[in-house]
Amino acid sequence: MKIESALQSLQFVEEIDRLKGVLRQTLVYDGARRENTAEHSWHLAMAVLVLSPFAEEKIDLSRALKMALVHDIVEIDAGDTFVYDTVASLDKQAREEAAAERIFGLLPAPLDTELHSIWIEFECLSCPESRFVAGLDRLLPLIANSKTEGHSWKKHGIVKSQVLEKNRKIEGASKTLWDFAARLVEDAVKKGHLSEG
Amino acid sequence: MKIESALQSLQFVEEIDRLKGVLRQTLVYDGARRENTAEHSWHLAMAVLVLSPFAEEKIDLSRALKMALVHDIVEIDAGDTFVYDTVASLDKQAREEAAAERIFGLLPAPLDTELHSIWIEFECLSCPESRFVAGLDRLLPLIANSKTEGHSWKKHGIVKSQVLEKNRKIEGASKTLWDFAARLVEDAVKKGHLSEG
Repeated sequence: MKIESALQSLQFVEEIDRLKGVLRQTLVYDGARRENTAEHSWHLAMAVLVLSPFAEEKIDLSRALKMALVHDIVEIDAGDTFVYDTVASLDKQAREEAAAERIFGLLPAPLDTELHSIWIEFECLSCPESRFVAGLDRLLPLIANSKTEGHSWKKHGIVKSQVLEKNRKIEGASKTLWDFAARLVEDAVKKGHLSEG
Repeated sequence: MKIESALQSLQFVEEIDRLKGVLRQTLVYDGARRENTAEHSWHLAMAVLVLSPFAEEKIDLSRALKMALVHDIVEIDAGDTFVYDTVASLDKQAREEAAAERIFGLLPAPLDTELHSIWIEFECLSCPESRFVAGLDRLLPLIANSKTEGHSWKKHGIVKSQVLEKNRKIEGASKTLWDFAARLVEDAVKKGHLSEG
């Protein structure tokens, strides 16, 4: 029984390697290439770890780390949906729910339910951990855009009001980090990397 | 003061993006390209998360996750040292200690000391978490080699006895996982992906 469960978890470990092949719209900070979702998930977990002292609400760090690690794992099946893509966003939820069912379902009990539930919480912003992790999940690409002369904003014709609206989640995570993010947005406008509007 | 600490941690978050550009000898499991250390660190943290029920010793999962996340962060300065490279391994410790000093030193107190200590523990195998994480850190590239027809073994002329010796750490992590690993090694020999010797 123990061996069977271990083999199931090992199967899961092999399957999720595929997340390294899912490309996001964001570039790595030196602009060399598009970022993939596995390395982004590591970066997010690290950000959660070192920015947790600035969380607006009290959070359970261990739960927040697990959430960061699994938050985008559904993209193995569902692909990355660009946050400003309103058409793809329409059926995003259904595609991702089916993916979560399949991927977390590879795990033995009770891990399958535990990680699936953490992923649902992330999606629903239903706990302090999810509000913190979701806020940082917005902050990292905002920093990437600020470091790459607004690469994905320019590419997709995104303007300041859209950036402010989509990144408002950062404020729920941490007012200190939101102040920082708002300054990055203003700087980007000043430098001509983001259009007013 | 709070804002100053937050800015220090944000500086750290920006700096560690560079780990995405450090290439390892191992390929991603579909063989498409070399793996980088950031995505490997995510994969290791996920493996820790889902394989923790099979740990040989009782571990603190939250501490083990932090350890997996930071275990290779020194490679930003020190580069990846191939586990079978005996020459590069000679000054590996000195290079990595200097890197740890600089990189963890970017963080505000007490995070700098906390994460630096966790990294030292990983290196020294001085606690159950380090023995578990270090074992899985060997298991993942072994699976990669088994999935890519022994790519990095063949490339560097590594033989079975070296693989068994270097991967013995897996046994310290989990006897169940060591049984699995030993079978992968035998299979690789049978298929001609690893030389006897």
